[in-house]
Amino acid sequence: MSTSRFFNDPQHTVAEMLDALASCRPLRRSDGDGVQAVVAENHDPRRVAVVSGGGSGHEPAHAGLVGDGLLTAAVCGAFFASPSVEAVLAVIREVTGTGGCLLVVKNYTGDRLNFGLAAERARAEGLAVEVVLVADDIALPDNPQPRGLAGTVLVHKVAGDLARAGAPLSEVATAARAIADDVATLSLSLTSALLPGQSEERRTAELGLGIHNEPGARAIDPAGAHEAMSEVLEPLLAVVDERHGPETPLVALLNDTGSCSTQELTVLAGELLTALGDRLRLLVGPAPLMTSVDMHGFSVTLAVWSEERDAALTSPVGVPDWPAVQHPRPITTFTPRPADEPEWGTGERDDAVAAALRAGAQAVVDARADLDALDARVGDGDAGATLEAGARGVLEALDADRLSTGSPDRLATELAAVVARTMGGSSGVVLSILATATAARLADDAPLADALAAGIERVTEHGGAHVGDRTLLDALAPARQALADGGDAVAAARAGREGADTTASVTRTIAGRSSYLRPEDLDGVVDPGAEAVARFLAGWAGAVH
Amino acid sequence: MSTSRFFNDPQHTVAEMLDALASCRPLRRSDGDGVQAVVAENHDPRRVAVVSGGGSGHEPAHAGLVGDGLLTAAVCGAFFASPSVEAVLAVIREVTGTGGCLLVVKNYTGDRLNFGLAAERARAEGLAVEVVLVADDIALPDNPQPRGLAGTVLVHKVAGDLARAGAPLSEVATAARAIADDVATLSLSLTSALLPGQSEERRTAELGLGIHNEPGARAIDPAGAHEAMSEVLEPLLAVVDERHGPETPLVALLNDTGSCSTQELTVLAGELLTALGDRLRLLVGPAPLMTSVDMHGFSVTLAVWSEERDAALTSPVGVPDWPAVQHPRPITTFTPRPADEPEWGTGERDDAVAAALRAGAQAVVDARADLDALDARVGDGDAGATLEAGARGVLEALDADRLSTGSPDRLATELAAVVARTMGGSSGVVLSILATATAARLADDAPLADALAAGIERVTEHGGAHVGDRTLLDALAPARQALADGGDAVAAARAGREGADTTASVTRTIAGRSSYLRPEDLDGVVDPGAEAVARFLAGWAGAVH
Repeated sequence: MSTSRFFNDPQHTVAEMLDALASCRPLRRSDGDGVQAVVAENHDPRRVAVVSGGGSGHEPAHAGLVGDGLLTAAVCGAFFASPSVEAVLAVIREVTGTGGCLLVVKNYTGDRLNFGLAAERARAEGLAVEVVLVADDIALPDNPQPRGLAGTVLVHKVAGDLARAGAPLSEVATAARAIADDVATLSLSLTSALLPGQSEERRTAELGLGIHNEPGARAIDPAGAHEAMSEVLEPLLAVVDERHGPETPLVALLNDTGSCSTQELTVLAGELLTALGDRLRLLVGPAPLMTSVDMHGFSVTLAVWSEERDAALTSPVGVPDWPAVQHPRPITTFTPRPADEPEWGTGERDDAVAAALRAGAQAVVDARADLDALDARVGDGDAGATLEAGARGVLEALDADRLSTGSPDRLATELAAVVARTMGGSSGVVLSILATATAARLADDAPLADALAAGIERVTEHGGAHVGDRTLLDALAPARQALADGGDAVAAARAGREGADTTASVTRTIAGRSSYLRPEDLDGVVDPGAEAVARFLAGWAGAVH
Repeated sequence: MSTSRFFNDPQHTVAEMLDALASCRPLRRSDGDGVQAVVAENHDPRRVAVVSGGGSGHEPAHAGLVGDGLLTAAVCGAFFASPSVEAVLAVIREVTGTGGCLLVVKNYTGDRLNFGLAAERARAEGLAVEVVLVADDIALPDNPQPRGLAGTVLVHKVAGDLARAGAPLSEVATAARAIADDVATLSLSLTSALLPGQSEERRTAELGLGIHNEPGARAIDPAGAHEAMSEVLEPLLAVVDERHGPETPLVALLNDTGSCSTQELTVLAGELLTALGDRLRLLVGPAPLMTSVDMHGFSVTLAVWSEERDAALTSPVGVPDWPAVQHPRPITTFTPRPADEPEWGTGERDDAVAAALRAGAQAVVDARADLDALDARVGDGDAGATLEAGARGVLEALDADRLSTGSPDRLATELAAVVARTMGGSSGVVLSILATATAARLADDAPLADALAAGIERVTEHGGAHVGDRTLLDALAPARQALADGGDAVAAARAGREGADTTASVTRTIAGRSSYLRPEDLDGVVDPGAEAVARFLAGWAGAVH
């Protein structure tokens, strides 16, 4: 049976993750199977070691947060299961020197007890160990033992910053407890988490879920991102305002609980920024920080902002999974300057050119039904309509005397604007590229044939089609060659016609829309674009003579 | 109806995302509705502006990649739809100065044409503009127009790095074309992408998908992460080896196409690291870089590694969404040092203490059925068995003469080890915390009552329960108090008994396992833990007398 997720044997997932981290980062990984842990490679034992951990399945918390300025080590249990006392103790022993050790523990009974006994035993061995509990969940207001959620990573950061700076254990612990007492988190999820190897998820929107699939405080039914963010922020702000007053400046952390898309997270961040307004001084994330495997949801953590805390939370760390920490700012804008209109008709006039152009455009208008019929066999049947619209645009511009028929470069620029505005889809863009690039060379006084060569080159560059790919180039390029060889309009029109006719026998192309069709569908059908060019040239040549 | 994702009105998603980005980052956002774009706030117009864009839905590409050292601007179409020529041109005009402009364009007809015409028109206005196409998809080997995929972001990075360094446009364009020609990408997905507002996704594993839900090259059926990575790497390496030889050192980018969990991405990164081995010199990601909204899949991009390219790809950028770029390294390990065994029985002996301890333990063994019966009413009915196991552990240690009955601190340490090893679950950890913390104070020659106070304090700290929460503390704390008040073993046992009995009338607790039960289920039932302590103390006191 096909897998629904990218895991191997669930028994090995934790070990595989730690191997991958230790293959890229300056970490040492525990060997053997008994203890799953990573420790920072260059920890100075005179500094406080900041150690966290717990069940796996919340990555990057905690193994992904080990590194300079953040955690010194992480002890990893099986998915959603606390690591053993022995594992925690082994890691404390590995990293704790004269600086001592701070254990940051999420408030779950198993973690509290196992980290707690490990701390006691480490103390009995003479090591200085402090424990900070994080209990930031506010989902169940009367719960005296709130769960530890994403607010934990803010405790990591504050502690890790102070520890790196060389602060003594008592100071690191005091600062960590201060923010641990302060963080308030509420989560919202549309699905439950699916452990590696599991395949049945619960799809009910709930508010106040824990990180181990504990049911939420209540079912909800948000209509979209705005409502979802409101569901989370209303109770969260009630708690924060009661604790600290409604004007307190805030730090917010927007945590992806597992499988939000970048687009959703960005929209949610926008909702959070708008809802908190000027109160929000610092935004951590959005990012996956304390996940529940692939739970589709998010949590918001709020804490009181201060300059000191800002400095601790924004200092750079050597940990790829630590997210953006950004100061909200007013949106600044720029006003897109619309492209200049061509200065219609400010150049010379040439009645013969005007007449030829009119005859060419009229020939395309007259060819509409034929072009549609060709296109019906190899496309969606609207080539005639599209080309007619462009040709009518030219006729209207002539009628309005907007075309500088006696100044070739200006005329080409004006035609580029006409076709871009009157023809829908890619045909108008292709013809406009042709005319724009041709105009640029004409402005340098290049002969028409040379200027057209430049235009054709740009059409190939931007459109990807070469001569032989069943496009308008198959008529245009031979016509241009005829001009380059000294031919007149009639010679060019004849070459264009022959070129268009050859497309009927081209049944395999590598670019342009014909490349999507089967050879048997193409056989015997002239490309509508090439046909239109041939008709235009025939009309033009007829008028010249 | 409840939403299945965190979006608002799909019409506004692009605007909402750009607002959120511009609310946190040094970007200017286009105003009005006609053009959706962001430009870097402090672009120096003497430097090359690196501009990219295309349809939205691939974030962080491209708006999320604008910032110092990466993109100068991003032009954003609707989801999966190219931005208009006017929009691209407006952005080129906004950012292009004497340094000129490099457009990085993914190889899709719409993007090519619209960016192409914008480039031609900008040139016609006198701006220096170069275009680099990225066509890194190798899913369809004979396709002369491969799609542009995640390799695009490596082109952004190389170009952005050179542009920041002040390189001229020609040099930036040459370097960008070199890596664009070099990147090869293949994707694998378990689901299709779901646009905002859509709700039906395709759930079929496919190899070689595009980023717009174009069907893949073929259906596959990977058994897990290892097989999925092999499916991608086999054809990818075939292409790379044919182009560059099988020994070429490589850069790899591991891209999340939308909704992979952190855990899956880490496991996949491990597979990639293992498969490429020493050839892999630089790993970009894993991270969402070129997503298809929430498509559940990944892509791997390979490019030839060189020192120059390494420098360009690893230089720091001021863009939160740019991921970790890491040099793979051999795994280094540490061997967890097992906790020291207590030096069993190396202290003094005291026959009276041994006898009392034996009697207390035996009393708990004898109480098993009673304890199980109590627990059956308020728990899972195994308290008796657990406590008996601990008590038997003590008896066995006495029989083996492993307990230093005449050295209180050593005895407490030995008992901490016995209960931790013989009792399962949290009870053993709690008792071990009690004994370990008590031992530490006894070692400082504290009286037993004071030492027990320290032990009780630690049990409360780590376990969360206070006296009155229906735990063993309700018997232990009064007994300790009796000792502190000068009472003997009998007084302590009496106080313990009375304390245990009070638990029968405690029907509301805030910690410990009883906190999960209804008052009516607790009423009249003595807590099994407190009962066990009372029995132990009664046994002990009986032996002393």
